Amino acid sequence: MSDRVYLDWNATAPLRGQTQRAFAAALSATGNPSSVHAEGRAARRLVEGARAQVAELVGAEPANVIFTSSGTEANALALTPAIESAAEKRPREKLLISAIEHPSVRVGGRFAKSALEDIPVEPDGRLNLAALAEALAGVSRPLVSVMLANNETGVIQPIAEVAEIVHAAGGLLHVDAVQAAGRIACDITALGADLMTLSAHKIGGPKGVGALVRSRDDIHFPDPLIRGGGQERGARAGTENVPGIATFGAAAAVARAEFAEETARMLTLRQKLEQGLCAIAPDTVIFGAAAPRLPNTTLFAVSGIKAETAIIALDLEGMAVSSGAACSSGKIQPSHVLAAMGSSPLLTRAALRVSIGWSTTQFDIERFLIAWRKVLPALSKELKNKRGIAA
Amino acid sequence: MSDRVYLDWNATAPLRGQTQRAFAAALSATGNPSSVHAEGRAARRLVEGARAQVAELVGAEPANVIFTSSGTEANALALTPAIESAAEKRPREKLLISAIEHPSVRVGGRFAKSALEDIPVEPDGRLNLAALAEALAGVSRPLVSVMLANNETGVIQPIAEVAEIVHAAGGLLHVDAVQAAGRIACDITALGADLMTLSAHKIGGPKGVGALVRSRDDIHFPDPLIRGGGQERGARAGTENVPGIATFGAAAAVARAEFAEETARMLTLRQKLEQGLCAIAPDTVIFGAAAPRLPNTTLFAVSGIKAETAIIALDLEGMAVSSGAACSSGKIQPSHVLAAMGSSPLLTRAALRVSIGWSTTQFDIERFLIAWRKVLPALSKELKNKRGIAA
Repeated sequence: MSDRVYLDWNATAPLRGQTQRAFAAALSATGNPSSVHAEGRAARRLVEGARAQVAELVGAEPANVIFTSSGTEANALALTPAIESAAEKRPREKLLISAIEHPSVRVGGRFAKSALEDIPVEPDGRLNLAALAEALAGVSRPLVSVMLANNETGVIQPIAEVAEIVHAAGGLLHVDAVQAAGRIACDITALGADLMTLSAHKIGGPKGVGALVRSRDDIHFPDPLIRGGGQERGARAGTENVPGIATFGAAAAVARAEFAEETARMLTLRQKLEQGLCAIAPDTVIFGAAAPRLPNTTLFAVSGIKAETAIIALDLEGMAVSSGAACSSGKIQPSHVLAAMGSSPLLTRAALRVSIGWSTTQFDIERFLIAWRKVLPALSKELKNKRGIAA
Repeated sequence: MSDRVYLDWNATAPLRGQTQRAFAAALSATGNPSSVHAEGRAARRLVEGARAQVAELVGAEPANVIFTSSGTEANALALTPAIESAAEKRPREKLLISAIEHPSVRVGGRFAKSALEDIPVEPDGRLNLAALAEALAGVSRPLVSVMLANNETGVIQPIAEVAEIVHAAGGLLHVDAVQAAGRIACDITALGADLMTLSAHKIGGPKGVGALVRSRDDIHFPDPLIRGGGQERGARAGTENVPGIATFGAAAAVARAEFAEETARMLTLRQKLEQGLCAIAPDTVIFGAAAPRLPNTTLFAVSGIKAETAIIALDLEGMAVSSGAACSSGKIQPSHVLAAMGSSPLLTRAALRVSIGWSTTQFDIERFLIAWRKVLPALSKELKNKRGIAA
């Protein structure tokens, strides 16, 4: 598929070349990190080396990184009433989340449905801070979960301000940084997050590894999601995914080293893409354009087309893009993110996401624009025809 | 570490050569299996191909395989009061487990501690079937979890008889087959198990992948452990570990193809090992020797030595063995398995496990026996000296 143009990096990114080497090296390490013999100790070193690398990406202490099997699992581990902190050991009574969170946050972890409350976003896709403050009033011991950057629109949330409001109310703040890591600054302390979720396969590591990072070691999970052995300091049982974790570490190190250069380069490509889209169809809507966004993500729509059809047409042209989130049961449902932003159903069903990464070239963007120019008339026409029939 | 002899296969097995190639191939597949474009569909094919391979290893339908991140997670998913079957949709009231289960079963999943009951084993390490029948009397809607083969002793449980008793009582049977798969027959229907746990890294696949297999599709998990996206037919959310799953499938296929030959070869090696151990120290105790055991596992003790010291001494001689389970927090605790079998504390603390696999050679066993003969006198002497000082 070397003639393909992969523009769905928010669904999953390819492995970085450097991490492929780390993967191969880790595969030859036989031992179980819990074993005391030389093979076990070698596996342990791989895990702990990666822990330091992942910690460094977000400015945390290595001991505060809990490896999981995915961002979804990290979210599930974090969102429990039974989080303890030095200040508060009683169960958290309420979970407040933004209306645009990933499904793995929207389900509310181990909170009862009745304890879960959505905080609305503004039309630009950013959290309504006044609504957050209002929802927090009178709630004792809240847990709040707000993503750093949205997977569909790329809109960046004002996490530092959110943190200030949450902490003033005596709450804990969990930040899903799965889409943000490697693309914008994610220092856990600077952001004011208490907990942060990461996923390896969005930053060039393998699928099957994530992490929940704590800002400090006085946050505990007395009732972990997966129990049994004492791995991850008791926070997550099961033999560690040694090759996956080692490769996650390598990916974090590369993401950190190449951050500034990559971010600037992606932003330039995104701007070219968006200029091109608007040149092809002047009525193109870029969702969240009024807000700060990830340098790699463009969610756009040309009113009247059907995204599912567009994806298939583009796929046939060699272009891999999506209609938003990939994380689904195969059923195409209207985006809850765009609904929360007040987008019309007609525009929502037309939304297409182009998301790029370090190996995306200007040529890829040009090829995409050529393909888009080619398929768009048929997509618009199809709809007009259908309307004609319906009329 | 090519001059090392790795004899700790029950802790984790090396990747099979054939699976390393599957891993490398799967790494180059970029897509997210939930994406509709060509890259997504290619990733989906890898996952579904592996699902069929894993299903075939245990005689199940592919649709009844739920991939997880480990055997531990599969156990945690299975052990919930909220399992539904066609016959019974109300919550299960009690979880009965054997006294020798893996820690991930012993914690009882999502059952309350008060709903958890241990069933004792006989001195030979096999479940006390009369005690099981007695414990089931009067319990409505029980879930029972009994492992197929014990990780420490290798003792094989009479699962078909257990299943008969459990089903007569209207219960569901979960079988942790993590150590049994690839080493003895594991046909889920022949065994009579309703649910079965597997782990990739014990059969030559990678760490970080497991599976919960259902015997039939009318068993449901309405409240999965990890929720969010609709992956694994709603039973387990999160982007699939595509390279890990693909490699698990490849390992299952190899394990199935080489099963008969490998089993016979391992049994011969185990017999040589045990004859050698008894020749070196005639008072050697082989735990579970009176019961059917895995062809690859020997747990033995020479009364008076200290296993921790022996492991270190053997490690220095290039031998990787263990004192039992590797799955721990680094704290060495007396084996609950041997305690349940009525072993004396003195013998329990001397227990050493040698576990082998497809790349273990007769030369490896001979080298181990030479090393054992070399270190044993010092280990026995050290203890006698300590006793002398204490006296």
